[in-house]
Amino acid sequence: MTDFSATRALFDIPEGVIYLDGNSLGPLPRSAADRVKTAIEKEWGSMLITAWNRAGWMALPSRLGDRIGRLIGAEPSSVVTGDTLSIKVYQALAAGLELNPERHVVLSDTGNFPTDLYMAEGLLRQLGSGYRLKTVAPEEVVDHLDETVAVLMLTEVDYRTGRKHDMAALTKAAHDRGIITVWDLAHSAGALPVDLAGANADFAVGCTYKFLNGGPGAPAFIYVAPRYAEKVRPALSGWLGHEAPFAFDLDYRPGQGIERMRVGTPPVLQMVALDAALDAWDGVDMTALRARSIELGERFIAGVEAACPQLRLVSPRNPEERGSQISFAFEDGYAAMQALIARGVIGDFRAPDIMRFGITPLYLNEADIDTAVARLAEIMAQRLWDQPDYHRRAAVT
Amino acid sequence: MTDFSATRALFDIPEGVIYLDGNSLGPLPRSAADRVKTAIEKEWGSMLITAWNRAGWMALPSRLGDRIGRLIGAEPSSVVTGDTLSIKVYQALAAGLELNPERHVVLSDTGNFPTDLYMAEGLLRQLGSGYRLKTVAPEEVVDHLDETVAVLMLTEVDYRTGRKHDMAALTKAAHDRGIITVWDLAHSAGALPVDLAGANADFAVGCTYKFLNGGPGAPAFIYVAPRYAEKVRPALSGWLGHEAPFAFDLDYRPGQGIERMRVGTPPVLQMVALDAALDAWDGVDMTALRARSIELGERFIAGVEAACPQLRLVSPRNPEERGSQISFAFEDGYAAMQALIARGVIGDFRAPDIMRFGITPLYLNEADIDTAVARLAEIMAQRLWDQPDYHRRAAVT
Repeated sequence: MTDFSATRALFDIPEGVIYLDGNSLGPLPRSAADRVKTAIEKEWGSMLITAWNRAGWMALPSRLGDRIGRLIGAEPSSVVTGDTLSIKVYQALAAGLELNPERHVVLSDTGNFPTDLYMAEGLLRQLGSGYRLKTVAPEEVVDHLDETVAVLMLTEVDYRTGRKHDMAALTKAAHDRGIITVWDLAHSAGALPVDLAGANADFAVGCTYKFLNGGPGAPAFIYVAPRYAEKVRPALSGWLGHEAPFAFDLDYRPGQGIERMRVGTPPVLQMVALDAALDAWDGVDMTALRARSIELGERFIAGVEAACPQLRLVSPRNPEERGSQISFAFEDGYAAMQALIARGVIGDFRAPDIMRFGITPLYLNEADIDTAVARLAEIMAQRLWDQPDYHRRAAVT
Repeated sequence: MTDFSATRALFDIPEGVIYLDGNSLGPLPRSAADRVKTAIEKEWGSMLITAWNRAGWMALPSRLGDRIGRLIGAEPSSVVTGDTLSIKVYQALAAGLELNPERHVVLSDTGNFPTDLYMAEGLLRQLGSGYRLKTVAPEEVVDHLDETVAVLMLTEVDYRTGRKHDMAALTKAAHDRGIITVWDLAHSAGALPVDLAGANADFAVGCTYKFLNGGPGAPAFIYVAPRYAEKVRPALSGWLGHEAPFAFDLDYRPGQGIERMRVGTPPVLQMVALDAALDAWDGVDMTALRARSIELGERFIAGVEAACPQLRLVSPRNPEERGSQISFAFEDGYAAMQALIARGVIGDFRAPDIMRFGITPLYLNEADIDTAVARLAEIMAQRLWDQPDYHRRAAVT
């Protein structure tokens, strides 16, 4: 049994705030500040350059990779952290295309997070004529898996609606047609059980600042199936992915297995914060987390639908078909979200009209859900969102 | 007049340590720990997701870019920070090649830092047949500037020897032959005056954890000459380089000017540490810094040459021809460096036989130099390096 009241105590949520945006930026784990302070003062400050060895900095990318690997059903030594998710998408896609050189189409869907599509565009332009990105509606993906497709690149859980693809079924369908898969787990890692090995996935990528609570700009991760680990030729062939970085050879030779997916010098301060955040996941059973996520999500949907007829559920009603967020459409959703935030309930907004709420069992409980519903109901019933201040858009929404 | 005893007081160097490795990892600026603590507790912890706007996180990459820009002679709004130096090399090189599409050769030299060559290899493989990397000896670069070369990619200051290229002259020679330049300033930024605008440079990249003291894994930077800023098509076309990241369009449209060289979510904690580190540079006159660097470097050379006949200077003897490090070759240099580190003088070693010493006027003075020379002299005179412990190589050297 995972004790979610115990995990709640590990986070520092401001008094009076109900935080339903852990799917965008997870809150501060209580231990993170001290861990970073130690890394700054005792390691950087006192050990200086020698901390790369003495404080274990050089091993952080792989050690954190293994810690995340446990949460996403990855084999040991198949995940490494570093860079941003955009960069990891590029790495995975380039590797997948090089493993399937006779084909030139990348298939994705319109529910994918835009940066995945943008990075694909940029890569395919480098690869030149013949290569192209084909983007179809999420529900039509399976119909477009044919022998022209080299790589199927999908985000498992839709960032807007929470709609979840069937990773195992789509991976199998792709493999049956000779297609390599790249799965983006941005809204999956720490949100629900993922079984990369069981699904026979080829590549996966994800970020750690959402459900994993690694902090603003926390490093991304990349998974390469062990069967490909020694075959992959990195497109982003940086020195820390070299077989012997400190030999300073003029020619690149890929490092052992997943190590070759490292690129440059790792962001130590961010990695130490992530390391502290991952402590909260020790002992968390992902099946129990999923059950709790569904329980709280259903409670939220029932409450909002009963009290706010103006809002329309855009997440799948069947909890098995969604991730760990609940989204409602409302024409004045931006203003309504600002009004809600002003009253201490923090969710976020995605254009054109979606109000998003992250359901994160590590630090949310029934009372939080009920209070959030009550405040939203009040805002909707009294049109409290209809104030000029709430319509003024911020740079980041 | 820059007061270098005042800048020295801004750094937290451990008692008894003389730090001659600021060319690899700069020491801790005293204000960094508090600034990161504030970012973690008051921003991440209290503002949560709203800190992207309220704490100015989203503007950090450009704001820090401008602060660095002043130190390298860049025009306002021509530098942005993010990612690692390896990634920024890839971005700059890809952009340069796309601006010179009729040509297919990247010219570099054997003194370049290996990751620059590795990243070029990876990029050129994506670009396909015809593209190739040509690597010549540093002194022969000028003879190979011909009409086959698309991009000249050089590191201004050699990481091993400190030998400095003449950026203005090589850039002019390259332009005369229709060649685009990419300058790596890893060992230049914060080490000596750089005048990108005056040299008419096209692209430049660099890291901030060496002379700029931004901390382990601090973000890199990229410069694009204003004349190219609106012409460049990013190969790494991430969402934060999009014209309107929060519109979540399916198609990529490059952002305004240098903003398009942003890729993914910025590493906020690292950026805040870098911001604190850059405070030490406020008011530092780069010409005064250079004069002081040469003064201390000459003193170090004279001292070592007088006391340690076993060591051979491999940095250029003429100070105008080197950066801000002094390197000596010694067959047992690895062990000698370990012996020196054990006695509180921290430099580093680069294979096969180079002992490197960074000369960093912000926090070094004559007494440091004299003590370092005295300890090195003692080690050499008494063969104190010849112990099994000192020959045992660490993972990171």
